[in-house]
Amino acid sequence: MGEFELIQRYFLPLAGQQKSRSLILGPGDDCAIQRIPAGRDLVFSVDTLVEGVHFPRNYRPDYLGWRALAVAASDLAAMGADAECFTLAVTMPEADEQWLAGFARGLSRASKAFGMALAGGDTTSGPLTLTLQVHGTVEQGTAIRRSGARSGDLVAVSGTLGDAGAALDYLNEASPSPHVAAVLDRYHSPRPRLALGSAVRGIASAAVDISDGLLADLGHILEASEVGARIDSARLPVSMPLKRLKGDAALDFALRSGDDYELCLTIPAERWKNAPDEIRKQLSVIGTVESRPGLFLDGKPCGGDTGFDHFRSRR
Amino acid sequence: MGEFELIQRYFLPLAGQQKSRSLILGPGDDCAIQRIPAGRDLVFSVDTLVEGVHFPRNYRPDYLGWRALAVAASDLAAMGADAECFTLAVTMPEADEQWLAGFARGLSRASKAFGMALAGGDTTSGPLTLTLQVHGTVEQGTAIRRSGARSGDLVAVSGTLGDAGAALDYLNEASPSPHVAAVLDRYHSPRPRLALGSAVRGIASAAVDISDGLLADLGHILEASEVGARIDSARLPVSMPLKRLKGDAALDFALRSGDDYELCLTIPAERWKNAPDEIRKQLSVIGTVESRPGLFLDGKPCGGDTGFDHFRSRR
Repeated sequence: MGEFELIQRYFLPLAGQQKSRSLILGPGDDCAIQRIPAGRDLVFSVDTLVEGVHFPRNYRPDYLGWRALAVAASDLAAMGADAECFTLAVTMPEADEQWLAGFARGLSRASKAFGMALAGGDTTSGPLTLTLQVHGTVEQGTAIRRSGARSGDLVAVSGTLGDAGAALDYLNEASPSPHVAAVLDRYHSPRPRLALGSAVRGIASAAVDISDGLLADLGHILEASEVGARIDSARLPVSMPLKRLKGDAALDFALRSGDDYELCLTIPAERWKNAPDEIRKQLSVIGTVESRPGLFLDGKPCGGDTGFDHFRSRR
Repeated sequence: MGEFELIQRYFLPLAGQQKSRSLILGPGDDCAIQRIPAGRDLVFSVDTLVEGVHFPRNYRPDYLGWRALAVAASDLAAMGADAECFTLAVTMPEADEQWLAGFARGLSRASKAFGMALAGGDTTSGPLTLTLQVHGTVEQGTAIRRSGARSGDLVAVSGTLGDAGAALDYLNEASPSPHVAAVLDRYHSPRPRLALGSAVRGIASAAVDISDGLLADLGHILEASEVGARIDSARLPVSMPLKRLKGDAALDFALRSGDDYELCLTIPAERWKNAPDEIRKQLSVIGTVESRPGLFLDGKPCGGDTGFDHFRSRR
């Protein structure tokens, strides 16, 4: 089977399996066409994953397919956008049918789970590199930006932090213990917080997804909002498996390791008090936004990541 | 200067220099935001260029910057869309300031020439690969698709064909003759037919940009429209420099070589008769759409490229 037949066979089904409310022309023409509903804005983000840099060499293709869309969709969650569709540019050394079948299977699961149709793409030959652009929509003016944090707002994070980062130490375990399996699952199958992101529109004053580590990503909110914050290590949500596996080092994973794709939000105290239980129970309050610049952990300055990329937050 | 400072210095100016009518949040947050005007559709396409595959190794970075956006924007021209903005995912081995400065210079010229603002991007380390996604808008329902050609329509192409393909033979000429310089310019500085594409909305029944060669790309229209066509080699627009350089082989370049980024259109005969002179003088009528399937050149069947990629037309 030729390259084009393979692509058609494995990728085209991804175009039809999801009904996007807004995609009116999918793959096959010079361009795709999306009709954004009146009163809504288009929200979009592009992410590249390079083999050996963003995922291990010879990484399982079905894990990669899921991960690629999950990582990209996480940026939509951070804006509070409703996911709609995506484009996929794949550069690969050769069209290996077994690899393509696995990759498409993982991508297809993610596409269904997140409700995102494939809108178009490009396939080229070269070293394995994936670029996905995700499209979401949001009621006009309601996207959650990084720049909205104000002194007095609470700092909150979803889920638990550090698991996916710890997983990197166990990627080659042949028969992982339950704790190891738990953190490996966080790495292989990140779940972008799309429903939560959408639910905190109008509640959160700023948001970012945690891809580079809490300190770095919270730092992006603080810089964009021109504020500081203090956070309390005792309040960081750390999973039992991570504590068991890493002991005292667990805190460091929670502060500095990325790949969890949880959300970090700032929320005005009054809105937090009145937030629905459904939202409150998905979040841990870990600190407070202050007018004093800088990020303080248990009272001590903690620069986080000072190398800061305005073009794009993620390396 | 670190990687992030370099990127900020060279790419961020591209975000501000163009006023997009619709881009309301550019680079720097988790996502960009575009507000599509009421009554218009979003039209978008993604293209990847790999070093050594789509452009020569050690290609001049300013040429590459122009070419990358021009090639991508050509797909907007083929839909009749008005160009608005683009995202840029760059994978490069290292942040080389001289290379970045040249690349950004070429990209900036193209961004101004086509009126497209940089909306966002991603930079990663790895083998040199560029993925650009271009966004345009069009009045709802007026985008020109590949599937609209009908028996009796005329087949027309813009400009001259084959020049850029012939240029590949002269890329290393130290002091090119005027004819060589002319075809080299077509390769290094493709000019997407954005104004023409926009002008033939409501006139053309189908359109494609010629990136893979006339036979292959016209073949895409015929397949999508479920029709055939005959074309007349004597009517193909071939430039004087190409004739001088390639003699009898010029026709083959015009038929089969890509990289010119001209448009191939089908136009109902009545509409062609009434088309403004401004449009007529930019086009050459080269044949006619027929209900009989297949593509015929001077009466002989001429399959063109049968390997056909529904996922994406361009290799």
